[in-house]
Amino acid sequence: MLLHLSTWREIEAFLTRSRTIVVPIGSNEQHGPTGLLGTDWMCPQIIAEEAQKDADILIAPTFNIGMAQHHLGFPGTISLRPSTFIAAIGDWVRSLAGHGFEKILFLNGHGGNVASIEAAFSELYAEASFARRPAGFALKLCNWWDLEGVGQLAQEQFPVGHGSHATPSEIAVTQWAYPDAIKSAAYSPRIAPTGPIREARDFRARFPDGRMGSDPDLATPEKGGELVKLAAKGLVQAVNAFSRESTPA
Amino acid sequence: MLLHLSTWREIEAFLTRSRTIVVPIGSNEQHGPTGLLGTDWMCPQIIAEEAQKDADILIAPTFNIGMAQHHLGFPGTISLRPSTFIAAIGDWVRSLAGHGFEKILFLNGHGGNVASIEAAFSELYAEASFARRPAGFALKLCNWWDLEGVGQLAQEQFPVGHGSHATPSEIAVTQWAYPDAIKSAAYSPRIAPTGPIREARDFRARFPDGRMGSDPDLATPEKGGELVKLAAKGLVQAVNAFSRESTPA
Amino acid sequence: MLLHLSTWREIEAFLTRSRTIVVPIGSNEQHGPTGLLGTDWMCPQIIAEEAQKDADILIAPTFNIGMAQHHLGFPGTISLRPSTFIAAIGDWVRSLAGHGFEKILFLNGHGGNVASIEAAFSELYAEASFARRPAGFALKLCNWWDLEGVGQLAQEQFPVGHGSHATPSEIAVTQWAYPDAIKSAAYSPRIAPTGPIREARDFRARFPDGRMGSDPDLATPEKGGELVKLAAKGLVQAVNAFSRESTPA
Amino acid sequence: MLLHLSTWREIEAFLTRSRTIVVPIGSNEQHGPTGLLGTDWMCPQIIAEEAQKDADILIAPTFNIGMAQHHLGFPGTISLRPSTFIAAIGDWVRSLAGHGFEKILFLNGHGGNVASIEAAFSELYAEASFARRPAGFALKLCNWWDLEGVGQLAQEQFPVGHGSHATPSEIAVTQWAYPDAIKSAAYSPRIAPTGPIREARDFRARFPDGRMGSDPDLATPEKGGELVKLAAKGLVQAVNAFSRESTPA
Amino acid sequence: MLLHLSTWREIEAFLTRSRTIVVPIGSNEQHGPTGLLGTDWMCPQIIAEEAQKDADILIAPTFNIGMAQHHLGFPGTISLRPSTFIAAIGDWVRSLAGHGFEKILFLNGHGGNVASIEAAFSELYAEASFARRPAGFALKLCNWWDLEGVGQLAQEQFPVGHGSHATPSEIAVTQWAYPDAIKSAAYSPRIAPTGPIREARDFRARFPDGRMGSDPDLATPEKGGELVKLAAKGLVQAVNAFSRESTPA
Amino acid sequence: MLLHLSTWREIEAFLTRSRTIVVPIGSNEQHGPTGLLGTDWMCPQIIAEEAQKDADILIAPTFNIGMAQHHLGFPGTISLRPSTFIAAIGDWVRSLAGHGFEKILFLNGHGGNVASIEAAFSELYAEASFARRPAGFALKLCNWWDLEGVGQLAQEQFPVGHGSHATPSEIAVTQWAYPDAIKSAAYSPRIAPTGPIREARDFRARFPDGRMGSDPDLATPEKGGELVKLAAKGLVQAVNAFSRESTPA
Repeated sequence: MLLHLSTWREIEAFLTRSRTIVVPIGSNEQHGPTGLLGTDWMCPQIIAEEAQKDADILIAPTFNIGMAQHHLGFPGTISLRPSTFIAAIGDWVRSLAGHGFEKILFLNGHGGNVASIEAAFSELYAEASFARRPAGFALKLCNWWDLEGVGQLAQEQFPVGHGSHATPSEIAVTQWAYPDAIKSAAYSPRIAPTGPIREARDFRARFPDGRMGSDPDLATPEKGGELVKLAAKGLVQAVNAFSRESTPA
Repeated sequence: MLLHLSTWREIEAFLTRSRTIVVPIGSNEQHGPTGLLGTDWMCPQIIAEEAQKDADILIAPTFNIGMAQHHLGFPGTISLRPSTFIAAIGDWVRSLAGHGFEKILFLNGHGGNVASIEAAFSELYAEASFARRPAGFALKLCNWWDLEGVGQLAQEQFPVGHGSHATPSEIAVTQWAYPDAIKSAAYSPRIAPTGPIREARDFRARFPDGRMGSDPDLATPEKGGELVKLAAKGLVQAVNAFSRESTPA
Repeated sequence: MLLHLSTWREIEAFLTRSRTIVVPIGSNEQHGPTGLLGTDWMCPQIIAEEAQKDADILIAPTFNIGMAQHHLGFPGTISLRPSTFIAAIGDWVRSLAGHGFEKILFLNGHGGNVASIEAAFSELYAEASFARRPAGFALKLCNWWDLEGVGQLAQEQFPVGHGSHATPSEIAVTQWAYPDAIKSAAYSPRIAPTGPIREARDFRARFPDGRMGSDPDLATPEKGGELVKLAAKGLVQAVNAFSRESTPA
Repeated sequence: MLLHLSTWREIEAFLTRSRTIVVPIGSNEQHGPTGLLGTDWMCPQIIAEEAQKDADILIAPTFNIGMAQHHLGFPGTISLRPSTFIAAIGDWVRSLAGHGFEKILFLNGHGGNVASIEAAFSELYAEASFARRPAGFALKLCNWWDLEGVGQLAQEQFPVGHGSHATPSEIAVTQWAYPDAIKSAAYSPRIAPTGPIREARDFRARFPDGRMGSDPDLATPEKGGELVKLAAKGLVQAVNAFSRESTPA
Repeated sequence: MLLHLSTWREIEAFLTRSRTIVVPIGSNEQHGPTGLLGTDWMCPQIIAEEAQKDADILIAPTFNIGMAQHHLGFPGTISLRPSTFIAAIGDWVRSLAGHGFEKILFLNGHGGNVASIEAAFSELYAEASFARRPAGFALKLCNWWDLEGVGQLAQEQFPVGHGSHATPSEIAVTQWAYPDAIKSAAYSPRIAPTGPIREARDFRARFPDGRMGSDPDLATPEKGGELVKLAAKGLVQAVNAFSRESTPA
Repeated sequence: MLLHLSTWREIEAFLTRSRTIVVPIGSNEQHGPTGLLGTDWMCPQIIAEEAQKDADILIAPTFNIGMAQHHLGFPGTISLRPSTFIAAIGDWVRSLAGHGFEKILFLNGHGGNVASIEAAFSELYAEASFARRPAGFALKLCNWWDLEGVGQLAQEQFPVGHGSHATPSEIAVTQWAYPDAIKSAAYSPRIAPTGPIREARDFRARFPDGRMGSDPDLATPEKGGELVKLAAKGLVQAVNAFSRESTPA
């Protein structure tokens, strides 16, 4: 069930069946010579939309801009500062919790978001702790590549050249979903360099075409489809496990 | 041209042709018994995607959560506080301006966003003024219903019962784009009441089913298609006029 | 009744008669070659002080610095950023609401304040919504030129050359109240240009003497007096209507 | 010279003669059974307006709401939080410094403002230090009762019962300026208690009628006039000394 | 009793005996040619640790970075902006108050902290006032040099050349506690100049070696020991007086 | 070299030899029935102080309060919110970078700090990116248990019952450094439970005595000494490697 294609009465009804919601969250940032700028928010959106086709889970609109400061040296990247990101996640959670959602699962598509999302969770919990009241909700972060079996499949599909940014697995997912937007380019070197992540200028100097350790040429729509199917299944499992989780007295 | 389906090199190339970008912006909020929660961010997205099919204009990802505090009494609404909204718009603009965009047009789908978006613009300009430097960019807000001819068409289509929230025109636009998600309900009264907008609880008491002054039953996908076509044309005109606008010396 | 010339016991007594207060709010900014820098906060102050002479309404001190970033290119302008403005309006409202005021009417003298004031209202309401409690107060913005009959009178007084900044109507109001501070200058052109409002440097380049579309030479103290009398009457009406307004259950 | 009764061109001209400006700053808060709520912002305003009659000094509009959280238990008090106060003082200073003012003297009328004003100064200086550039301006805080000779005169006028809040000296100043607003009441005890300043509820319990250690009955308009004359003279001296002060190389 | 060397159960037990805690607070900043960078946070820490040896008082970890923007021109200085300082003090107080501490005494070692600490107190109290609830705690600031008898002893020890920064008294305290870290240098002039405190660059130009009005050569570990013993005794008195203080009904 | 026991001139001299500084950072929070509240900030401080005895590395004062919201249910815990933590780390870095430090290594002692520290780094880098200038510094986070060989040693020392909070390894380190503060208690169960980290009340319900998966009874001062020696060596290696790291052109 997609929240944005529902009415408020349908959500009201859903809340009588479940108190869990999934928020796809990612980033809009450069993904090398052939990766789409929307890759990191489209991947969790694609997986979440697939998952809800066969399961009674609720998918919120996609939080599409995340923490991508290190990619700002490449045109098209849009980034929130961590402080803004924390404030915005806070308002999403406050809104959803106000409706009665007690389990909010963020399905994440960008490694660079992890620290700021977890900081946002702590900020929200601290608000309750300082006010000496229970928060009333539990927050969970799942990266789509950590869903049951997904990491192993990606390793089998791309034993060499997977890397950590503009990876063939994420590019394959978008190829499956947007076959008309498949791009090609000559990569040099074939497998991109690796190194630390610092500020934007430093990043562009270390990683001139934007890739980190990856060979995106390995991506195919078919491999993407396999990943999406498996991740969608894993998401439903994760949602169910989270929903069943009880809060200690 | 859709930014999220492009690579950074394609955006780099676009910037040699134009310094203008369109950001669809809206809200995710209740729209009465039959309106979709995503109506206000989907309308500008639908129009912008239509517009770029025949014109060389660049569309950013959609800024899909806005200022909807007064709708928080209805499940599914997600709102940013104005302060968060201002911070987030600021980071989007700083990111885009850093790439060289000099004209940033926000195509808006929610009346309740207007004040906060304009406050965000002033915040950004003030940052430059206090630093005693030119901002280097111009910001423009266009509501899709104010695009050339659109208001007049809506008035002709819906001479009675248009209202100001959950209007037949915006619902028609989403019906045209998402025919599988057309909902129906009995409306009572047929035309919803009007009144001032205050906080969320007050709002729900004044407007029990969420509509303001509207009769959404009048919406049809065909009328929606007419509105989209006209608005898409108006958007291209607005982008071109904004792009041509020169900055005083 | 002027709050600043009252004691706390007199306010305590007033609160047994009424829960409504008027806050004159404006801006301190350039007003062309002859307009006073204080024009935009003095106009609502003049009108409010006049109104309370014959009616039992309570006038707060004047909020005299507003959102005037676009005028910062002219000496003497003082501006708050929207974020600061929102924080300050918030503290005024929290203070007043803490005393039991339930209807707070901001009588505004500066068009550039409107977006930020409305954003401030939403910020305050959202605070209540996110805390899942009623706000306990209603906020209302009235521009003095929108009070009953005032716009029509100004149009009759100044059918040509009224413009939108450093207008003859606002200058006339200050001339009536501060006849010793009437300034004169040669205007060139007689009627100032019009155009969009962007950042401060852009503004000064477009509007070299600070006026927008106006011919301040038309102002006279007599016309100002007429405007003040009518606006004062309109303010009392507005206060009474707001006080009578009931909150939905 | 009063900034709010001047045009921007007059300020532009003043800046060729002097780079110093005076900002009267105070608080709007309860002042016991007979003191006016505006006492703390009206006193510096009265003194500053008097001082500029015979000296070429420039007076900004009055910053009329300060840090008065401890008085919030009494109706009519309006307070900024220190964080808001710091932000607002920051914007005033950034605005004025942008016009070329290099010496900004805050003439203060409220003891409770001192800490927050000095914190605001440090915040502004730190902004420059962190950016590794000179601030370009110097900030000075003067309490009106600390101006040359004023404290001694007050001690002579009120050897017993001066106290620290709702003092006969500040009330005398407002009596001189607003003789029509002189209030009277029976005081019990004649001299109010003293004690520490904590939060608002604690304050009202310690100081039931709002006074701290004072006997306002001693105030007379004549004594107020003497204080104003002496303080106005002291202000001109302070402005001149500040203006002459050179910055180390 | 030192909190950081205790377990949570020991603190739980302490709270059954007392609701008071001491927080040593200072600054890490240049202290002239021979003063240690840690002087201002080590002095209150030394005194507090000494005091708890013979009295059942609880000492929190040391808040070691304060408001030292004016010293940023000298290597090794670390400063918080006042706004950050206020936020951090707020979180310390919210944490401690959440455990049941009702009297929180900040033992301060840096004059430049005073304004920001008092602003932080007001910010915390205002939070309660705006929420219309009692704060539930009292906050007290004690400079170690203002403890009973300490100022007089310092004056007797250093009748000439005490000054206000890098004073012989504070350097003596650190010499007593860290005899291995005693430094020596030739001072020129013997007694440093005095003057106003502005931004960092201005400060370094006025006070080239970092001292203000002091002759640190007068410091000896013995004099430091005398000061520590007296201050420790004074601290126990201050804690006891604060603990006994009752809150008005 | 300990910064707080140095003079500014000694730091000035150090900067001619190295541009790297180490900041010990931790948290003050409950550590089970026997762990000290200061454990998480004392461990990196102990290791850093040990490391600088034989190597020319510079150690800043300890950042002793971190992100510990989930421990707030236990007396003695003091926590910053992530937003405050980010602001404070920002001011430390701005201060140090202003003196010329180009490599700032945070030696961390608390797992719960990691997300907020990394968010703080991104906030600082984003500040530079948005201002379109290089940051001028590189930031690195090292957990002391991740230093070369340390994790392996801990695993050998405590093959069972190490757990993740109030671990025998961290308690052993404090036992070695503070033998007089070794505490004992009966643990039940011997090995604490494991589970997710949410808000403070939830945490205390899941982990009633504060431990997570650990058996602190295994700690001995001797094992602590071994860990400190190895970690100190690893820190020097990490500092040297970081110092040698070149920035891409």
